[in-house]
Amino acid sequence: MNPEPLRRLIVELSKLPGIGERTAERLAFHMLSAPRAEALPLADAIRDLKEKLRACSQCTLATESDPCALCADPRRDRSCVLVVEQSRDVWAIEKTGTYRGLYHVLQGRLSPLDGVGPEDLTLRKLTDIINGGAVREVILATNPNAEGDATCFYLKKRLTGVRVTRLARGLPAGSTLEYASRSVLAEAIQERRSLEHD
Amino acid sequence: MNPEPLRRLIVELSKLPGIGERTAERLAFHMLSAPRAEALPLADAIRDLKEKLRACSQCTLATESDPCALCADPRRDRSCVLVVEQSRDVWAIEKTGTYRGLYHVLQGRLSPLDGVGPEDLTLRKLTDIINGGAVREVILATNPNAEGDATCFYLKKRLTGVRVTRLARGLPAGSTLEYASRSVLAEAIQERRSLEHD
Repeated sequence: MNPEPLRRLIVELSKLPGIGERTAERLAFHMLSAPRAEALPLADAIRDLKEKLRACSQCTLATESDPCALCADPRRDRSCVLVVEQSRDVWAIEKTGTYRGLYHVLQGRLSPLDGVGPEDLTLRKLTDIINGGAVREVILATNPNAEGDATCFYLKKRLTGVRVTRLARGLPAGSTLEYASRSVLAEAIQERRSLEHD
Repeated sequence: MNPEPLRRLIVELSKLPGIGERTAERLAFHMLSAPRAEALPLADAIRDLKEKLRACSQCTLATESDPCALCADPRRDRSCVLVVEQSRDVWAIEKTGTYRGLYHVLQGRLSPLDGVGPEDLTLRKLTDIINGGAVREVILATNPNAEGDATCFYLKKRLTGVRVTRLARGLPAGSTLEYASRSVLAEAIQERRSLEHD
């Protein structure tokens, strides 16, 4: 019974992660009764996201300007490159205010089950930058899970002639031991640090 | 840190009902990494919804053609008009296949707290149709809650010279007494029907 434009919107909304058919229907009906001036800015925002943002030609971060503000910033330390899976990881790390070097966005992680191999990542750009000679350290900051670890391991083997580090693993600050998972606890024990030499 | 187009999309998504800031972020990041061919159809679907659907000039149902397919259908019974709050109620009733008359969509319900008065509903169109003389019965099918009931009560007073009925109230089919709320049970007792005359 629903008219075609409404049906199509429900279909498109259902494709979003975590949005089931009932939620998609609820959202579509909300947009149907909302004034144009409320509904159309969302359509424009989606279009602008895909049209105004592009990959930085140096680090592949999603950016409005090319090179991105981080690559263009003369105050960033060009001897260090921090490698992440996706743009949002860069923004998360920038929020901490603890890193002053450059970034590189892989645009994914190795995932043989999903058919994602090394050629699907932006490795060529990364090795070009390292081969440029200014980089002394590469910090691998892929996600601390199976696929991120596999990507990290692969990169470690591929990147030569440069110091390669990865982010620390262990108990998350602010957590409690009793709620830590077995694997987190096991890793925290394995990776324990000597207090004497700190 | 997020670039402006991403920030704006998160703001627009957060305005949707039931979408908090975290969900809006998750959806926006999904659209950021999705291919254009996946993200843009959603933008187009929202735009089409607002541009292709208009209110039927007779019953105010959201429709692509004017008059809508229901008003234009010569097989519908023009002596009966079923009055609902919104277009989706029409589609819900059509799915049951039990009603063959015309509809009228109020485009809302009386809600003094939200500043919605009779002048905000499509009452003029409804009375025009009733004054046309062909209508013999008006079925009030506003929602069975405080605002819907108030709207129903108001309409009953306004509509003269025509039989006015409302949808049956009572226990929902398929439910159990033990889980029925007090008000549903009370109404089911008050509105009990004689089996002798059925």
